Amino acid sequence: MEPGSGSRQAGPAAKPVVAAVLPAGGSGERLGGATPKQFCTVHGRPLVSYTVRAMERISWISDIIVVVSPENIETMKTITQKYGHKKVTVVKGGITRHRSIFNGLKVFAENEFSSCLLQKPEVVVIHDAVRPFVEEDILLEVVMAAKEYGAAGAIRPLVSTVIASSADGCLDHSLERARYRASEMPQAFLFGIIYQAYQQCTDHDLDYGTECLHLALKYCKIKAKLIEGTADLWKVTYKRDLYAAESIIKDNLSQQICVITDVKEDVVQVGFLLHESLKSQIKVEVISISLFENDSHLQNMFSGQCYNFIYIHDKQSAFQETQLLVDMLEKSNIPLLYPVVLISVHLNSSENVSCSIEMEELTRIKKFAREVKKKNIWVYGLVIHYKDHLPLQEVVNSAAALTMAVIKDRNPELIGQLLVA
Amino acid sequence: MEPGSGSRQAGPAAKPVVAAVLPAGGSGERLGGATPKQFCTVHGRPLVSYTVRAMERISWISDIIVVVSPENIETMKTITQKYGHKKVTVVKGGITRHRSIFNGLKVFAENEFSSCLLQKPEVVVIHDAVRPFVEEDILLEVVMAAKEYGAAGAIRPLVSTVIASSADGCLDHSLERARYRASEMPQAFLFGIIYQAYQQCTDHDLDYGTECLHLALKYCKIKAKLIEGTADLWKVTYKRDLYAAESIIKDNLSQQICVITDVKEDVVQVGFLLHESLKSQIKVEVISISLFENDSHLQNMFSGQCYNFIYIHDKQSAFQETQLLVDMLEKSNIPLLYPVVLISVHLNSSENVSCSIEMEELTRIKKFAREVKKKNIWVYGLVIHYKDHLPLQEVVNSAAALTMAVIKDRNPELIGQLLVA
Repeated sequence: MEPGSGSRQAGPAAKPVVAAVLPAGGSGERLGGATPKQFCTVHGRPLVSYTVRAMERISWISDIIVVVSPENIETMKTITQKYGHKKVTVVKGGITRHRSIFNGLKVFAENEFSSCLLQKPEVVVIHDAVRPFVEEDILLEVVMAAKEYGAAGAIRPLVSTVIASSADGCLDHSLERARYRASEMPQAFLFGIIYQAYQQCTDHDLDYGTECLHLALKYCKIKAKLIEGTADLWKVTYKRDLYAAESIIKDNLSQQICVITDVKEDVVQVGFLLHESLKSQIKVEVISISLFENDSHLQNMFSGQCYNFIYIHDKQSAFQETQLLVDMLEKSNIPLLYPVVLISVHLNSSENVSCSIEMEELTRIKKFAREVKKKNIWVYGLVIHYKDHLPLQEVVNSAAALTMAVIKDRNPELIGQLLVA
Repeated sequence: MEPGSGSRQAGPAAKPVVAAVLPAGGSGERLGGATPKQFCTVHGRPLVSYTVRAMERISWISDIIVVVSPENIETMKTITQKYGHKKVTVVKGGITRHRSIFNGLKVFAENEFSSCLLQKPEVVVIHDAVRPFVEEDILLEVVMAAKEYGAAGAIRPLVSTVIASSADGCLDHSLERARYRASEMPQAFLFGIIYQAYQQCTDHDLDYGTECLHLALKYCKIKAKLIEGTADLWKVTYKRDLYAAESIIKDNLSQQICVITDVKEDVVQVGFLLHESLKSQIKVEVISISLFENDSHLQNMFSGQCYNFIYIHDKQSAFQETQLLVDMLEKSNIPLLYPVVLISVHLNSSENVSCSIEMEELTRIKKFAREVKKKNIWVYGLVIHYKDHLPLQEVVNSAAALTMAVIKDRNPELIGQLLVA
């Protein structure tokens, strides 16, 4: 499961063999930047990797063909390897969207683009590489409709009225908004249908067309079934969409937190209070263990979809324990796709420690965090400082607010800083 | 000038009297939240206030009519007052978009919606309250075209193919994308034209129509001039658009920084190095002054479009000086529309101060920051700690990275924290 994923656990009733083709050959000119948008990094990882991951996690999709322009083949292969993507075949695209999709389909029918033919799917999904938030349920709906109708595609209501202009740049007529829909992705086709359509279509279609559903209609007389999709099918098109994608990803990553405390009474108490303070905003799991006993409950947390950990202790520095957590996280593979936030919380009560922070200590924390960042684990420090005459709850609330701020912002520049509640 | 505004200094050649009507009556159901999107806060301020501000700053727009649903009239009046908006008249909307716009127009022609008639404009701009990033140049283009043609509107290329479905929910036909455009805002009309169109149009038009350009064509035979707009005319529709808007606003706010140092040699040197380190990312102005002399250069900075200030000093706490800056900022009115970031940088060299930070000192900074936050000034602390044997440039680079992180994130929860470079 991905963070914040709303997928239902589901699979096709009678499962067809399904493959996906992701055209990723766009030049990104609308973004105004040099990097095509599918390769722009969002929270540290190229956008296309998120879309690949959205497909890859679905058990009934067997192959994912990513079609990229010739100059990006190596980039795409590196991305596939770096983020451990399975099921991916990288294919050289053509000069237009339709030519790229056609190349992707040929992998199942001709020897032109890969050394070995892949198993021909019954149904092929076509999905843009720049629509990373696609969920299993809409994919399943589209695939099942394609099996029944031959072709299917997601649609959305129009956001703006569509108009036609006359030759002099003036309004000719406007379309009645309610009668039209925006054609979105994913789309799905019986492989035989879409492949036949591409084989028959003209150079004009291949060079100027954009709509696969139109090809199925024109060449195979297949009227695609239209499926109302959700708003999250939107296409990353402009720079503002990259901002939105990053915010959504960070939002999804900050849905769950694991609070780990050692077994000392006052530390456990703070863990409990922190849980109470956080639980209205985020799913919280609290575990009180001795780290050196390698608890199985903790192992379970590390195999879930949690990307945020708090470790509460009463030592001025707890590098040894934090290092142990880092090692466990690293082994768990969680930091492969997303940076993991680890907040080391020092419970500082007036009874047992000094009331000042040494500069050298701060330098050590920063150095440690910089090292650990290489493993995609981001360590932040937090001091919960309380004295007997102050209400502990108030300090814990402040700690909870800072924790949420760190988890939601996920700012790599602030790693190794020591915040004070 | 607004932060990051790309407006050219311009005004109509022969200035018509121009007013603007902002329909802001939408229910926000597409956002999935209870608050209509125009009233959602973006970086602490309701979205509609940004759009009002975008209109208000244009000298040749004389009146701004904001049309809201009856239950939001008081909310809108409070917003107008709180953010010091001028030129605004709040008008009660109807149950549909067209009925609301019609109500807005009536303010210039009938006594129904306001106690005194406003001056009838030659040209009226109609613009959505949820398109906050409209610039003066597109408004001017649309207004001048309306003066010439009677009506004009901004258009954009379609992002998705538009399709028509048949009664059974299947594809009927797809439109050739290149022949159509999305109709966006702003639009502008000769007042006489659009008012006549609304007076003549049917209840069906008022209840089910959405396109003002269509009314001008249908009832006044006016073919609107279409103007290609830029991508920033987009409409805040979904939750992701609120994320995007917030990121764009923060991005615009982090384009310029003012570095203030006292006149001591080592502080001035650090100010210079910080300038060198920051200037590739942000416009930096460095001023070395004695704060207590109330420098006129500093006063100039406070009347510009700078929302970020760094004050570098060599005192462990410089509350008195920081308070002075806060007072000057407050008087300047800069914090009225946007939170101002003020980073108090303590230059800590091993020669003259201790190498630890007292907890009580940290508590004092937090308390101070909490007080100042009420004035919409967000204070953060930063220590530049260096010893003779360390290269100063390296520490300054770290300080620059932290400064940029604080300025870009603009996180209210982290105020009063002391970061260490």
